[in-house]
Amino acid sequence: MHDILFNYMECRSGEKLTERERDLILTGFARKKMRKRQYFLQEGEVCRRLGFVVSGSARMFSVDEKGREHIIHLALESWWLSDQESSTNLTPSRYYIEVLEDSEVLVISVPDAYELRNKSRCFDLTIRALDKYLVVTLQNRLHAAIAMTSEERFADLSNHYPEFLRRFPMTMIASYLGLSPETLSRIRKNSRHRL
Amino acid sequence: MHDILFNYMECRSGEKLTERERDLILTGFARKKMRKRQYFLQEGEVCRRLGFVVSGSARMFSVDEKGREHIIHLALESWWLSDQESSTNLTPSRYYIEVLEDSEVLVISVPDAYELRNKSRCFDLTIRALDKYLVVTLQNRLHAAIAMTSEERFADLSNHYPEFLRRFPMTMIASYLGLSPETLSRIRKNSRHRL
Repeated sequence: MHDILFNYMECRSGEKLTERERDLILTGFARKKMRKRQYFLQEGEVCRRLGFVVSGSARMFSVDEKGREHIIHLALESWWLSDQESSTNLTPSRYYIEVLEDSEVLVISVPDAYELRNKSRCFDLTIRALDKYLVVTLQNRLHAAIAMTSEERFADLSNHYPEFLRRFPMTMIASYLGLSPETLSRIRKNSRHRL
Repeated sequence: MHDILFNYMECRSGEKLTERERDLILTGFARKKMRKRQYFLQEGEVCRRLGFVVSGSARMFSVDEKGREHIIHLALESWWLSDQESSTNLTPSRYYIEVLEDSEVLVISVPDAYELRNKSRCFDLTIRALDKYLVVTLQNRLHAAIAMTSEERFADLSNHYPEFLRRFPMTMIASYLGLSPETLSRIRKNSRHRL
């Protein structure tokens, strides 16, 4: 089960893991089976763990005063589960992270992950690369949200994450794009008509 | 002029700079005076430099097919200038970074910054902290864009970045929030009426 994480790290960091590093990762990351609809994090908790999705899927969302859900992240295999604001500042999270199907997750505590960065160059480079990747993807999504029309945002998502359209229901895709389900339904209908 | 950067690094990293590290930073970062409306980066260029604003201000924006500008970042003193997507992937940037007043910027090339991270623990921890900070602020802005009303987004900005309202014209604030200038004007008028 850890092999997927080993491959991911070597690919992201561009370096080979040593035997010692593999041992550190095996000891550091615990295997966790999660059932559909189980929470990895709940609003109001401090996020003290980092999760790597081996199989399954998840969503991170907030709930506003009117009870409406707003999905900020969707996660599939080889994605990470965490709220960096909460884990960095040790403040209560405003988000829920919910597993959407029976899933397997490798879990490490935030202090252990910090220690591991000092001990394993490959893990440090992986997290460096992950943070850069997060900055880039968040910047792109923010740009889409402020600069693109609803149609362009859906087309952008379809290009970058076609897997999302196969794995997540359209109500979740709409929320992720900041659109109403009705608007997304209209866009999809019109785009099919144009084909 | 480098003192501001030294202070910033020690504050962000939580570590004291050694004399050797100070020398490396003095050698690594070149002083650059920029005139109002000068570009630090232009669309289509690969971003090969990282800038630290010592004095002045800047904006990072895209221009769409209809010639409309969309501001993705506003920067004041002690903020960084770069397009991480372009500098990480070595792809042409879709953004302009323009200095908005006569400014002083400390500049380092992207490969030199990478080298410096390996040589200076304090600089490495600074960039780690900066990337975490960027992830958190971008996630917050994305959440605001998809989950908040226009009024809430303006209130959120006023709380988190009151300096922005003093330093940047309202047309830029509107673009940064993804609102039309008319909508922002109406929101400000209504919020004054409620006081």
